[in-house]
Amino acid sequence: MKRIEVSRATLGRIPIYLKYLNDISELSENISATAIAKELDMGEVQVRKDLAALCGAGKPKIGYKINELISSLEEYLELVRKRAVIVGAGKIGRALYDYGGFEQFGQKICAAFDCAVSVKQESKGGKSIYPMKDFKAFCNENKVEIGIIAVPSEVAQEICDLMINCGIRGIWCFAPCKLNVPENTVVQYENMALSLAYLANSIN
Amino acid sequence: MKRIEVSRATLGRIPIYLKYLNDISELSENISATAIAKELDMGEVQVRKDLAALCGAGKPKIGYKINELISSLEEYLELVRKRAVIVGAGKIGRALYDYGGFEQFGQKICAAFDCAVSVKQESKGGKSIYPMKDFKAFCNENKVEIGIIAVPSEVAQEICDLMINCGIRGIWCFAPCKLNVPENTVVQYENMALSLAYLANSIN
Repeated sequence: MKRIEVSRATLGRIPIYLKYLNDISELSENISATAIAKELDMGEVQVRKDLAALCGAGKPKIGYKINELISSLEEYLELVRKRAVIVGAGKIGRALYDYGGFEQFGQKICAAFDCAVSVKQESKGGKSIYPMKDFKAFCNENKVEIGIIAVPSEVAQEICDLMINCGIRGIWCFAPCKLNVPENTVVQYENMALSLAYLANSIN
Repeated sequence: MKRIEVSRATLGRIPIYLKYLNDISELSENISATAIAKELDMGEVQVRKDLAALCGAGKPKIGYKINELISSLEEYLELVRKRAVIVGAGKIGRALYDYGGFEQFGQKICAAFDCAVSVKQESKGGKSIYPMKDFKAFCNENKVEIGIIAVPSEVAQEICDLMINCGIRGIWCFAPCKLNVPENTVVQYENMALSLAYLANSIN
């Protein structure tokens, strides 16, 4: 199965569909897009489009087999899944590392690295924080594709270059700075301070 | 001075301008938009538009007085600033509460509340975490305008309603759910898990 591209909004609804479908899977065999839309208080057209894109067309009058829908949606998330690591085990880095919410999308942050760590440590959540010297070998062995930058701006570019050298092609950057990357690398910036300021600026 | 609305991108550049202008304020008296653009590696048109919106027009051939630019930009951030509180002192809540980066926009999270706290506690950063019973009084006394929701989805709407009852008009929601709010309330959603999944889905 080749992964098709869907919008951020559609992707965001997959865990909602999955939760609902798993809840009802023992009660019923089939379900229509109309019924799902009604139960989840979503637009029917939206649900129809999402399911058509992710799982193909339903059958007239019958709709979808619930178990098949669940499998298709889980398969999609499986194709989306990439191995991710964090560099920078400060407050934001550790909070992300220990955050359980990624699992609803089948994502997992598999390791964290920090230059202040010389011997392997454990986070509060019991996950390993490694010294930077282990970074390259870990990325190669584990085919890491996503790097999360949670270091201060001053060293963000250096860490970014290292990540790219280690084969990482997607960067999620929490440092408030602009990174220079090759064309085939995707960077997604997260600026918490700007988000709060922007919200404050939206209130009249 | 009435606060004019600017784009998220323009707002995001204010701390960058301020840092640079403060760095050079003792070396020079005037500066042109052209020179700022060159130094900061930004587009000249962009810098001109930003400064015109935030600080008015510069003088032909002279540009701007650096000290006046700094004052205008600081004044703008002063007008943006709102009092914010967090409900939910779990990992994400505490990381945000202790995060120092908000200051670059003049923002500050002034208190955190948690239903599991019965007597005032301290965060790692030495800031107070209060029991929920103190929430209403704190919001009223401190004219809190922004509420940050960092509780599980199941209780997010309840906390949202409480915030609105306490006069909060801007909500920053880290719970993966949809909130019902009155028309005059602004909600900004932050879904970390979706952000990571979306990045993963963007890599080919």
